[in-house]
Amino acid sequence: MIGQSGTSTERDGLDGLDTPCLVLDADKLQANIDRMRGQLDALHVTLRPHLKTAKSLDVARAAMASPNGPATVSTLREAEYFAEGGIRDMIYAVGIAPHKLDRVGAIRRRWNTDLAIILDSVAQAEAVAAWSRQNGDPLPVLIEVDADGHRSGVAPRDADTLVAIGRALSDGAALRGVLLHAGDSYGLSDPAALRAAAEAERRAAVAAAAILREAGLPCPIVSVGSTPTARYAKTLEGVTEVRAGVFMIGDLFQAGVGSCAVDDIALTILTTVIGHQRDKGWIITDAGWMALSRDRGTARQAVDQGYGLVCDRAGLPYPDLIVQDANQEHGILALRKGSSAALPHLPIGTRLRILPNHACATGAQHDRYHVIRGGAMTGQIWPRINGW
Amino acid sequence: MIGQSGTSTERDGLDGLDTPCLVLDADKLQANIDRMRGQLDALHVTLRPHLKTAKSLDVARAAMASPNGPATVSTLREAEYFAEGGIRDMIYAVGIAPHKLDRVGAIRRRWNTDLAIILDSVAQAEAVAAWSRQNGDPLPVLIEVDADGHRSGVAPRDADTLVAIGRALSDGAALRGVLLHAGDSYGLSDPAALRAAAEAERRAAVAAAAILREAGLPCPIVSVGSTPTARYAKTLEGVTEVRAGVFMIGDLFQAGVGSCAVDDIALTILTTVIGHQRDKGWIITDAGWMALSRDRGTARQAVDQGYGLVCDRAGLPYPDLIVQDANQEHGILALRKGSSAALPHLPIGTRLRILPNHACATGAQHDRYHVIRGGAMTGQIWPRINGW
Repeated sequence: MIGQSGTSTERDGLDGLDTPCLVLDADKLQANIDRMRGQLDALHVTLRPHLKTAKSLDVARAAMASPNGPATVSTLREAEYFAEGGIRDMIYAVGIAPHKLDRVGAIRRRWNTDLAIILDSVAQAEAVAAWSRQNGDPLPVLIEVDADGHRSGVAPRDADTLVAIGRALSDGAALRGVLLHAGDSYGLSDPAALRAAAEAERRAAVAAAAILREAGLPCPIVSVGSTPTARYAKTLEGVTEVRAGVFMIGDLFQAGVGSCAVDDIALTILTTVIGHQRDKGWIITDAGWMALSRDRGTARQAVDQGYGLVCDRAGLPYPDLIVQDANQEHGILALRKGSSAALPHLPIGTRLRILPNHACATGAQHDRYHVIRGGAMTGQIWPRINGW
Repeated sequence: MIGQSGTSTERDGLDGLDTPCLVLDADKLQANIDRMRGQLDALHVTLRPHLKTAKSLDVARAAMASPNGPATVSTLREAEYFAEGGIRDMIYAVGIAPHKLDRVGAIRRRWNTDLAIILDSVAQAEAVAAWSRQNGDPLPVLIEVDADGHRSGVAPRDADTLVAIGRALSDGAALRGVLLHAGDSYGLSDPAALRAAAEAERRAAVAAAAILREAGLPCPIVSVGSTPTARYAKTLEGVTEVRAGVFMIGDLFQAGVGSCAVDDIALTILTTVIGHQRDKGWIITDAGWMALSRDRGTARQAVDQGYGLVCDRAGLPYPDLIVQDANQEHGILALRKGSSAALPHLPIGTRLRILPNHACATGAQHDRYHVIRGGAMTGQIWPRINGW
């Protein structure tokens, strides 16, 4: 076969894989998990890993405190898959649509799983309380609180709404606390600003919890979380748990934020060179946006990584070589604009590995991880799920 | 349930679906197919539909001239799925990586399928010829020719390379013709420019075919294709077939190009309202970028549609209401900047339908289509595949 080295074939085992596909470095995964666990242990809070990035039971087991959880999910499909896999303590951390309550109830019953939901309006709270009464299942609920104007949630000092939701829930459902997500931290990159975002998230959480407790409502859980704020928090006093997900795998976007180093990224897309346009300095591969995802999150960061950073088969980046553009099943590799690096000689058939912009989006284009340890294929395949 | 109308429930059947999910309007699909077939019949060329958009055997059967094909695919996974479904004439229209030849050969044998491949270098041609000799299976090959500098392909007047590839193939493989894709047409929106792009694609194809024939090499197939150029071509003299895919379904990007009208788009994402941020004019839904895809293709067009255009459950757009931003499982709906339209009253639980930017990318986030006809659920589910 053209351009393949017999020695490296024997060493890493990557030639046994068709391309494009996902390669997950289990050593880096474990180091990322250990680092986050160390950080949160020191701050005396529970890690409730968000499984929306990996969507894999194998990865979940590496990240959770116990095989039973706790964990966070982003879809009811995930809740079903992870409940089937033995996880018994989950929060479905997307505001509930009332029509989904029957499915929530079915998951709770079928797997005897403590699946909690979130909401941020009295209308939802009334629907949940009514469902709970009708079904004799007091659904555990966290009130979503808005940490930073990013998306959903009640304003953290809007006592009227917080208490009205709490009271509406008390007629059948089980108020379990407050939940926040400092999503605006994704737009930061300065450590001081990240520390401030983490502290603002903590303060908002504590303020909302205090309002509920002062009104005589229960608030055992105070849940915050985003990978950047989890990484940069200096204190989490008053917080009981942290949700974060992408930290396990990392990606170029998180490296741009400062939540990980490029070398920490555990996920690459294995691809093969299928052509060249030499006069343009292009190398064409079989990993287009279908394999990499359409995510261009680094386009708004200081270093635009295109559709990904190109590495050799050992996972070492080539200087300034990025996926400059992508069609559905074609990646176009080129040197970063203004680079003085030399375009590497990469004949047809050469295997390359691409570091992704966004692990959540790239993972979702695939149905399995091929696991490497010590830089070589283990033969293990970790399935992952998608869909709703 | 909050905000749902009993009458429309009975009428359209959409309340039986969990959200987010894909809804495919089979009436619009058929009209789009009929229109393209009429256009190509008038130009006396064969339609070889590209199945990379729909990735569904049901859609393929609606689009193909016969249940056996012809068709175009973008992955070998598609080739396997469609061969299993009875399609016997396919081109895998991504430059071949030599390690994939065994899989190509297996598909050809197992389903007795005429699966052709493409390439644009002597190195690939030599590998294909060698494989063909070793396996006693003369692989049919089209030489990829570069219509417009968009991606891969030999320059259409580079006689030396075209003939060298043709001669390399002749030692075992079966040269079947030339193949072009005028991908740069996606960046156009002016009808005159689109007609010119179609004519440039045709001329490049005819020029390359003439070079091969003058060298005594066979060139029975002259294959061009892209939805915009297929739609705008005035003549296709010298061309034998047209590949196009997204035309069947349409999307906001193609509407921006001028390849379809917004009302022709056959695909929507069904979603549910899960919250509001009233002071910001935001409506939150359960269709984020995971359901819509990260594709922001319309950002570079005259009308930026955000992550999609918001329609009521009947599929009629609300004035100026777009998916302004998206997180993984959250869509943030807002009025287009500067709009004087009123934000519609959409209570929690309201079902909405989102017109997507890019049917290929959005479809890939899902594993099935829910089929409607006459504006109502048929109960039919058309599976679709993903992956490689």
